[in-house]
Amino acid sequence: MSVKKGELIVLSGPSGVGKSTVISELLSARRDIYFSVSFTTREPRTGEADGVNYNFVTREEFERMIAADELLEYAEYVGNYYGTSLKVIREKLEQGVDVLLDIEVQGAAKVKERCPEAVLIFLIPPSIEELSRRLHRRNTDAEEVIERRLEKARQECRESVHYDYLVVNDTVVAASGEILSILAAERCRAAKRLHLTKSIVGEQ
Amino acid sequence: MSVKKGELIVLSGPSGVGKSTVISELLSARRDIYFSVSFTTREPRTGEADGVNYNFVTREEFERMIAADELLEYAEYVGNYYGTSLKVIREKLEQGVDVLLDIEVQGAAKVKERCPEAVLIFLIPPSIEELSRRLHRRNTDAEEVIERRLEKARQECRESVHYDYLVVNDTVVAASGEILSILAAERCRAAKRLHLTKSIVGEQ
Repeated sequence: MSVKKGELIVLSGPSGVGKSTVISELLSARRDIYFSVSFTTREPRTGEADGVNYNFVTREEFERMIAADELLEYAEYVGNYYGTSLKVIREKLEQGVDVLLDIEVQGAAKVKERCPEAVLIFLIPPSIEELSRRLHRRNTDAEEVIERRLEKARQECRESVHYDYLVVNDTVVAASGEILSILAAERCRAAKRLHLTKSIVGEQ
Repeated sequence: MSVKKGELIVLSGPSGVGKSTVISELLSARRDIYFSVSFTTREPRTGEADGVNYNFVTREEFERMIAADELLEYAEYVGNYYGTSLKVIREKLEQGVDVLLDIEVQGAAKVKERCPEAVLIFLIPPSIEELSRRLHRRNTDAEEVIERRLEKARQECRESVHYDYLVVNDTVVAASGEILSILAAERCRAAKRLHLTKSIVGEQ
């Protein structure tokens, strides 16, 4: 393994938890991180741009990518496909660049399976009541969709046992601060720094 | 396990690496950390105070503590005993206070054996040449002692595979910054925050 290999960081969290805001904060603090934009078949929300929030593709195109094995992971969620392209990520990691993925629980589990060294971070709301308030404040979903999202959130929290870290998104600054600490700490993992002790003992 | 249980943090590093300075920096940034002062039978160096740098005790007293099983770990190093008292540490951890231990490699391995959840951090010099310069600059040891310390440092680096993290003490600010990140990240470990997801899914 190359000494300078980048970290693969997976960030998940229930819909409405404020993941996009935390990611923006994170990327402005760590401009060296490559944020991998996912592919999806869902419709863009107001303010979302193709190639920025997601690569918006048709169902036909997405199914072609699945068939051609071009995806690191993909999942279907509330009737839409979401997936991550493998090629660019692999290149960035080899160049020593840290890569951030914003994917949901099923996808994250698949990434961990294929890349056990990936760092999985799950963003949770301070409480389910606060998540409900945030979803209502967003004002984009019907009551029925919100209820479905809350139930999905509970289920995702139950499945979050596969994650390495849990970060509470109470305030954006605190949450992104904790994630920055996690990334800094992961760089210090002894298993990733064996070359440093080898150079001390003269085995390099 | 109590939700508020403190972290047991073990910091090791070869003689001359600058551990005391890093610890001072760390403790001034995190005044809530309890620094466990080790017991030793070695002579105090100039500027060292009893109960601050070490609890300096006689060989007889130390051997009484061993016999009474009052030590979490102890080791003999360059002809002197070094050890950690168990009682205070246990109390602090139960109160939710993070405890920092400054102990060497053999002792750290024993702590990890008894407390697998302890966080082991190994501080290394940027190079063996720089360590040699630092030992000479300290001007307290004869050339022969320095040579012995350098050989011991190489050996400790070889044994540092049991550590969770490796931090290079290039500058004190960078090294203590990395350690602060490690401590912040360890608080976010999913295994230590299961109570948070339980409260979300309503199982608390």
